[in-house]
Amino acid sequence: MQLKTLFSPRSIAVIGASTKIGSVGYTLTENLLKNGYAGSIYPINPKTDNLFGLPCYANIFLIPHEIDLAIIIVPANIVPLVLREVGEKGVPSAIIISSGFKETGEAGKKLEDEITLISKEYNIALLGPNCLGFLRPSLGLNASFAKILPEDGKIAFFSQSGALCTAILDITHDALAFSHFVSIGNKAVINENELLRFFASDKNIDVISFYTEGLIDSAKIIETGRAVLSQSDAKPIIALKSGTTPAGTQASSSHTGALAGSDDAYEALFKQARIIRATSLENLLDLLSVFSNNHLPENNRVAIITNAGGLGVLATDSAIDSGLRIASLGEETKKKLRAVLPPSASVNNPVDVLGDALALRYQNALEIIAVDEETDMILVIVTPQTMTEDIKTAEAIISIKKHYDKPIVAVFAGKKSFSAGIELLRKNNVATFAYPESSMMVLGSLARVTHWRKQIAIPPIKLTNIDQKKAEIIIAKVKNESRTALTEKETSGVLQTYGFPFFATYEVRSKEEALEVAQKIGTNVALKIVSPDIIHKSDAGGVMLGVDPNNAGEAYDRLIATVKKNAPDAKIDGALVVEMAGKGGKELLLGLKKEPGLGTLLVFGLGGIYVETLKDITMRFIPLSESDIDEMVREIKSFALLSGIRGETGIDVLYLKELLMRLAKFALDFPEIAELDINPLLAFPKGNDFRVLDARIRLEKNVA
Amino acid sequence: MQLKTLFSPRSIAVIGASTKIGSVGYTLTENLLKNGYAGSIYPINPKTDNLFGLPCYANIFLIPHEIDLAIIIVPANIVPLVLREVGEKGVPSAIIISSGFKETGEAGKKLEDEITLISKEYNIALLGPNCLGFLRPSLGLNASFAKILPEDGKIAFFSQSGALCTAILDITHDALAFSHFVSIGNKAVINENELLRFFASDKNIDVISFYTEGLIDSAKIIETGRAVLSQSDAKPIIALKSGTTPAGTQASSSHTGALAGSDDAYEALFKQARIIRATSLENLLDLLSVFSNNHLPENNRVAIITNAGGLGVLATDSAIDSGLRIASLGEETKKKLRAVLPPSASVNNPVDVLGDALALRYQNALEIIAVDEETDMILVIVTPQTMTEDIKTAEAIISIKKHYDKPIVAVFAGKKSFSAGIELLRKNNVATFAYPESSMMVLGSLARVTHWRKQIAIPPIKLTNIDQKKAEIIIAKVKNESRTALTEKETSGVLQTYGFPFFATYEVRSKEEALEVAQKIGTNVALKIVSPDIIHKSDAGGVMLGVDPNNAGEAYDRLIATVKKNAPDAKIDGALVVEMAGKGGKELLLGLKKEPGLGTLLVFGLGGIYVETLKDITMRFIPLSESDIDEMVREIKSFALLSGIRGETGIDVLYLKELLMRLAKFALDFPEIAELDINPLLAFPKGNDFRVLDARIRLEKNVA
Repeated sequence: MQLKTLFSPRSIAVIGASTKIGSVGYTLTENLLKNGYAGSIYPINPKTDNLFGLPCYANIFLIPHEIDLAIIIVPANIVPLVLREVGEKGVPSAIIISSGFKETGEAGKKLEDEITLISKEYNIALLGPNCLGFLRPSLGLNASFAKILPEDGKIAFFSQSGALCTAILDITHDALAFSHFVSIGNKAVINENELLRFFASDKNIDVISFYTEGLIDSAKIIETGRAVLSQSDAKPIIALKSGTTPAGTQASSSHTGALAGSDDAYEALFKQARIIRATSLENLLDLLSVFSNNHLPENNRVAIITNAGGLGVLATDSAIDSGLRIASLGEETKKKLRAVLPPSASVNNPVDVLGDALALRYQNALEIIAVDEETDMILVIVTPQTMTEDIKTAEAIISIKKHYDKPIVAVFAGKKSFSAGIELLRKNNVATFAYPESSMMVLGSLARVTHWRKQIAIPPIKLTNIDQKKAEIIIAKVKNESRTALTEKETSGVLQTYGFPFFATYEVRSKEEALEVAQKIGTNVALKIVSPDIIHKSDAGGVMLGVDPNNAGEAYDRLIATVKKNAPDAKIDGALVVEMAGKGGKELLLGLKKEPGLGTLLVFGLGGIYVETLKDITMRFIPLSESDIDEMVREIKSFALLSGIRGETGIDVLYLKELLMRLAKFALDFPEIAELDINPLLAFPKGNDFRVLDARIRLEKNVA
Repeated sequence: MQLKTLFSPRSIAVIGASTKIGSVGYTLTENLLKNGYAGSIYPINPKTDNLFGLPCYANIFLIPHEIDLAIIIVPANIVPLVLREVGEKGVPSAIIISSGFKETGEAGKKLEDEITLISKEYNIALLGPNCLGFLRPSLGLNASFAKILPEDGKIAFFSQSGALCTAILDITHDALAFSHFVSIGNKAVINENELLRFFASDKNIDVISFYTEGLIDSAKIIETGRAVLSQSDAKPIIALKSGTTPAGTQASSSHTGALAGSDDAYEALFKQARIIRATSLENLLDLLSVFSNNHLPENNRVAIITNAGGLGVLATDSAIDSGLRIASLGEETKKKLRAVLPPSASVNNPVDVLGDALALRYQNALEIIAVDEETDMILVIVTPQTMTEDIKTAEAIISIKKHYDKPIVAVFAGKKSFSAGIELLRKNNVATFAYPESSMMVLGSLARVTHWRKQIAIPPIKLTNIDQKKAEIIIAKVKNESRTALTEKETSGVLQTYGFPFFATYEVRSKEEALEVAQKIGTNVALKIVSPDIIHKSDAGGVMLGVDPNNAGEAYDRLIATVKKNAPDAKIDGALVVEMAGKGGKELLLGLKKEPGLGTLLVFGLGGIYVETLKDITMRFIPLSESDIDEMVREIKSFALLSGIRGETGIDVLYLKELLMRLAKFALDFPEIAELDINPLLAFPKGNDFRVLDARIRLEKNVA
């Protein structure tokens, strides 16, 4: 879908332009006219010939020019008619401002489906319905009914909530500058994925950001997010996601399902797509301020310059909490600092320039630290002391920030005394905070993007011995019988075709056979009677555990004899020889869970009785790479248990990763899997000893 | 110590008053004079007779009046001399503004010890040294060198950092009102504990708050914190604590020590003392704004009124994250809301009054919800839409807040359009935020205090069978031998005198004795050879496990015979008969850790191999109550494992609590315990089956 005519139109038709002051049709037309937009504007309203001094048309066909963008502000029920006219006229893009669609219920939903179809028929790039429109400061274009056109800048922002748009424009009117500011409304046609891809390739954009209540197609988002971060002009993406629907975590029959809540899924998605997730609206705006005004740092070492010890301590705590390191300043740096600071100042990080510091002392310290090789980012803290020079200190920060590439952020911890200094910093693109903690949180996110950029791919794991065909036959049978749950035998059958290790089980009919297969198994075995007449095998003496494989022949005879004595009338078909579990295995959980519309999650964590209480799990959407799997295995809290602690040998982590990769491949090959639980998988130091103890698979309903 | 003359002095001597503009002696004297303070002020400076139009004295003895408070602003080295004069004059309280003490190193530390001694000798209530002084708006008294005297109000605040004081005064000059604003500096004499107790009994104070980098004497803080919250005019206490010293978690020989970091200890302390811990400086100021302007809610159910769906969703998410419940509005309430709101408005919580809501619609909705019985608190969200009336909406909120007791907080999510409305709300004591998340976090804290107030005491656990004397003898022996670590035998000996269950062990010398004690033990036993010549018992065949008690006699004979065969030259003294562990016990950790100066922590959590990786532990300072122990047991993540899940029988939780209580008593009786580890304690459904598998005790060094 082309979005160029939508966001850079040469001509705009406003269908539903109005002279009624206060109406959306009036406000929007006025907004189009008053901000210096250089293209042509054609109001459409059958009731008048002239509007705002422009010729007004009764319908779009009467306009004797080509139109790039149609903005539609008419009652919902006539929108389909109007949109079809737009299509007939050959207009390539449109915004439907009108509400009254999906958000109002079933009838509105039908209307929205209709306009989606019309857009596809005429190939119209459609924004909305039920939206504010968009703003492009660089074009002097306010194609919305929002009051405030922000400054032109490098941030592209889009939001599912129109009210959040107006709130952000109002809060940040003097603080943030945007290239695109877009209200996407019900996203009938253009959704987050289209905009992410479009903005990713725009050279005038440095940061992409959005607010959403729900996304679709995780694979596309991950692909775009990773690509845009790895290109040479990396554009960080920042998202605010709300609306954790508890519905998603209800009705789940598996452990995996119960553990992987909807919000956890989004957490995983953002991590995987390398999208910074804002923790709050405030954090979102803080992130935009820092990301749009700074380059990415080389690494995560932060230096703090402060005129107040207490705030230095608060900043240090937050730095650690935010995953940053407190830079160890180089000896040369300390020497230079000693030369310009009073003797009682601290030249260790946090550098304390003392309460009586004038602007010059800040400037000297900043200049020295700006070239310190152990420092990647600088936080300058200024508190209002008797001698403090807020404006001059702001000027010093601004001038040094211009000369160096390192991120520099200011905390001006005052309001009454500092308003002029803060104003100056903002105007000169220095992100400024009142509190040390929030600034450190944002620097932590900045360093996280650097970390993501640096990550090295892990070599691929080669998967052999997968028999997809055989699995297809088993699953087809389940579907043919209109079932969703696989039987135990089907489950192990399917998983074995993908290389999952189950306990070996053989049916034998003689002493000799029993001995032979037991020796083939090689470990202690269990013998279980096979008889159609015996339901409770143990009660009839039909189970023997811990049998040495070399004694399996004699044991078989004893088993048969015992059962014959206890149940003389039962027909006996033979016995099962079953491999027994080794001792001391770690219980793990491997699972799959489909998030409708979004994708399938691969879930991994501690299994067994701990799974529900400790919830030590992690997840990622498939498809995923070896690096994702490596991250997953390492990020559970019990990783130390798996890799071995206190001299204990760890489990075969490489084989564990292979099994996770096998499960991911299985999910890709069978998208109809709704939920899958392998719990526990018993894991041992040797991959050969791994065994699946229990597993369940459930398919989606109504999948052909 | 009396603090009345300090904070309500009738007369003040300023030792080191100065005419030098910009000096601390000048600024402080000017601050005392210009804010309307009604008491007498006596400048002291030997270089002049007159200062600011007041008679100036050469020393304090020349003042022909009684002095309540001496403020000392002279170089550190002559402070002891001056302070002694203050004492001789009979002045009951003093502030040392001067720096140059503990904060500068060893020499300064000595000087500070000297002034502490002088204060004690003359019984002077001493604030500082190295502080700003204090401010009392209600008295027009600025006894500090801070520039801004805040408005008179109900918050008492004190801070270890002077710069934080000036920052807070500057940031909140038009937003918060204080009864006391105190810089406590190095707290040589008056520390946080004295101020907490003093402010607790002041009827003019509603909220107590402080910033600290480290406290002492947990027991006093807990006592004060609990008392002040349970009195009828409950005063919430709010603390900001920074400076998590990693030193505290270093050099620790026990699990308990390694797990209980210094910051965890403070987390526990604040929880136990019922002190709300601010998560950041911003959160501290948010908390003060909401706590000082609202009563405590009845419960934790919040209603949201908004003109924007998106922000309602963000607020809902944050409410859940903050431990609040979204109120289910009553049917009557919904009916009334339907009558005043447009048909497309949502009358379910969050109540959406729609984007075109004027002030009247907000007012109507607010009035209805203010009397809804299912709602305890109200958050009003206003975003800037075309029609929004910020001032009128603010007026509606102010008027309704005056008439109802429920906490009401406003989010005005705008800046450019909302400055007048926000100003109005602040002036009229409505806590106002720009962002929904931060407001919900604070309402969560408000509800938490209500929850604390409601908690019901748990009946005491009676401890019998404690033989303190016997434990004293064992520990005295360790000290006499200048050891700090107890041997295995001493450890089990001491713990057994406090009722901890160990495995029964008997030394026997004959077949008959072996049988007798094994039958007395009653479970399977282990037999171990006793011989001074055999070090590796197993290698010599000197260990038998899992012996049925009824076969213990024969087993004894077999053991002796085997060892005789394998080690014919060894002298054999007999055998140990040792009780063996039952199957399926849960491994727990119980521990003690002394935090120097602060108190001893009781630590509880999951034990065994999981202890270090999963860190599922909790802790509280001793002494503690049955309710504290109950809280501890319930708050670990694995509690569900202990209480029984999936049909499994849980452990005997009551007996577990008794053991924790026993350990707390042990720590009280023996304050010289530095660290104690019981890991694992094996826990079972029946208390009788609990056993300590391993334990260690280390005493403090140099304790007489």
